[in-house]
Amino acid sequence: MEAFSDGVLAIIITIMVLEFKVPEGHDWHALVGLGPKILSYIFSFVYIGIYWNNHHHLLHMVRTMNGRLMWLNLLLLFWLSLVPFTTAWMGESQFAATPTALYGIILMVAAFSYWLLQRAILKQHSGDSSFVVTMGKDWKGKLSPLFYLTAVLTAYVSPWLSGVFFVLVAVIWFVPDQRIERALGSR
Amino acid sequence: MEAFSDGVLAIIITIMVLEFKVPEGHDWHALVGLGPKILSYIFSFVYIGIYWNNHHHLLHMVRTMNGRLMWLNLLLLFWLSLVPFTTAWMGESQFAATPTALYGIILMVAAFSYWLLQRAILKQHSGDSSFVVTMGKDWKGKLSPLFYLTAVLTAYVSPWLSGVFFVLVAVIWFVPDQRIERALGSR
Amino acid sequence: MEAFSDGVLAIIITIMVLEFKVPEGHDWHALVGLGPKILSYIFSFVYIGIYWNNHHHLLHMVRTMNGRLMWLNLLLLFWLSLVPFTTAWMGESQFAATPTALYGIILMVAAFSYWLLQRAILKQHSGDSSFVVTMGKDWKGKLSPLFYLTAVLTAYVSPWLSGVFFVLVAVIWFVPDQRIERALGSR
Amino acid sequence: MEAFSDGVLAIIITIMVLEFKVPEGHDWHALVGLGPKILSYIFSFVYIGIYWNNHHHLLHMVRTMNGRLMWLNLLLLFWLSLVPFTTAWMGESQFAATPTALYGIILMVAAFSYWLLQRAILKQHSGDSSFVVTMGKDWKGKLSPLFYLTAVLTAYVSPWLSGVFFVLVAVIWFVPDQRIERALGSR
Repeated sequence: MEAFSDGVLAIIITIMVLEFKVPEGHDWHALVGLGPKILSYIFSFVYIGIYWNNHHHLLHMVRTMNGRLMWLNLLLLFWLSLVPFTTAWMGESQFAATPTALYGIILMVAAFSYWLLQRAILKQHSGDSSFVVTMGKDWKGKLSPLFYLTAVLTAYVSPWLSGVFFVLVAVIWFVPDQRIERALGSR
Repeated sequence: MEAFSDGVLAIIITIMVLEFKVPEGHDWHALVGLGPKILSYIFSFVYIGIYWNNHHHLLHMVRTMNGRLMWLNLLLLFWLSLVPFTTAWMGESQFAATPTALYGIILMVAAFSYWLLQRAILKQHSGDSSFVVTMGKDWKGKLSPLFYLTAVLTAYVSPWLSGVFFVLVAVIWFVPDQRIERALGSR
Repeated sequence: MEAFSDGVLAIIITIMVLEFKVPEGHDWHALVGLGPKILSYIFSFVYIGIYWNNHHHLLHMVRTMNGRLMWLNLLLLFWLSLVPFTTAWMGESQFAATPTALYGIILMVAAFSYWLLQRAILKQHSGDSSFVVTMGKDWKGKLSPLFYLTAVLTAYVSPWLSGVFFVLVAVIWFVPDQRIERALGSR
Repeated sequence: MEAFSDGVLAIIITIMVLEFKVPEGHDWHALVGLGPKILSYIFSFVYIGIYWNNHHHLLHMVRTMNGRLMWLNLLLLFWLSLVPFTTAWMGESQFAATPTALYGIILMVAAFSYWLLQRAILKQHSGDSSFVVTMGKDWKGKLSPLFYLTAVLTAYVSPWLSGVFFVLVAVIWFVPDQRIERALGSR
């Protein structure tokens, strides 16, 4: 499951670049229009990078693979597979309200799918109290959808405000999941 | 063989997204035209997901790899590699009769290729009666092509009817192949 | 090296499908124009499939990886990476003389690169006479470039003649490399 | 981390081919316009090939994976993911000054990211003096950005001059990192 998921994430992160069409002109001015697209790409690159890393850690926690986990994993990949589209639309529209809101919605639903997957994996460790306790707090997992929701709503006020909340989510996840690292280390 | 197959399936599932062109407008209304395309994508995402999972289980049953198995596997991948095209056509045509029928035909032929591959792998277990018995029933494998065929024929009556049969196939395969899981578990 | 090569081959085989643009119409007639493209795709799918399989076998023969092998491998992948382009051109031109000839030329050069890679790997087995003897005959490896060359030349007479020789190459490679399988089995 | 990075590099190297649009005509003359694009592609294929190989060697040196390494790795992949775009622009512009300069800039920044990653991994070997000594010299790693910088500047004089420096970088890296191979061998 890891190889397939890694493959899908690697493809998602790379095909977003196909959206950068070769500009008409041959001078620096020709690149100006690309600005919002590149900013949009940077956001998505960081998010997919974060998912890849945490997802990787998470799958190592799986004790027994079953159909339920597999479908929850596919559900997460489904939402993430829509990120290249929402990234392109948000960039192309120069961060217009609706594309920015949709961008946030897809990330919010993906975050929720991740949380479902995590919860299903946590259940396999229900006896291991120390593990559940460290994971259970999970302030990152709870804060992210809230930040995404705020970004979705503020998109109609100002895309800059949305941008602030998108950056905030990236910042809190920037450091990979030390809870798991610690839990693993303490065994 | 598994790494290559997983790679091909991961790419197939992801490049379908390239079909979602960035819409002209920047409001929710601009997304309306995408409806049939997204529905079409969801179908294919689920089918490829099902194939990936069952294929994965199946390849673990292989005792000795040989040229015959390799070519049967490539035959299956060939038909599945056409799914992004049929998905795009069906979505773009808003489920018109012929694109929907072609979509079903390719899936039907893929299902038949899967059955050929499965049969070839089963032969390697001909001595292991309990395994053959559990696998031999294989009502899913027999029902799927029948449902696909019905979907192909009903496409000319109503695309909705085809949709019902497409959903039915997804539903019966939704749970990964417990026959194999059970057979493996009982050893 | 194997994972990277497998990845590149998996992507090559799959992105060729992106060349099948969604047709304008929604009936069977709309597919007529796709005929040469699909035939062209089938050829390439089979060739890349053959390369993937034999390449896989070949890399298992490597005793010590070094820079020379790595660059010979990249050279092979370079020529194969041009196959989606030549496939698209040949199909789109409905097997016109020059695109068909170029298609054959790229395959011929790829076959030559494969032969260089094989020879370099063979050198690592120079003490193992039985292995070298079985591999040394290599009539497939010697016949393929000859057939490709003939296909290139006959492209200017008739694309059908070229097609015959393309099919011939596929046929002789259809069975995976039993020489290596035998050599490995006899150990 | 290696599987994901290998996947991203494999995709980057392969999607560049999508830039070769099928030409209008069906004779050799129709290919003339592709010249600069293919030259541009050859450069990038070689660079990504070099990165893949050295990156591969480098990751084997990692003692303990942590968030810092992961983000430095993603930073490198980010810059390399822009290579298909700069390759297409440089080729399409027939090596005009600005696209050629941008091509060099992205490679320069990627080389710098690689150096940061290498330095972070070197720190994990700070006790192992012989390793640090052999790696520490690293004339390739220091010369490359200098050559890229020169290529960026000379792009405004003559693209041919830039080309010379691009070739020079490829030449010095052509042989995979023997320092590491030697350091590993001497253990």
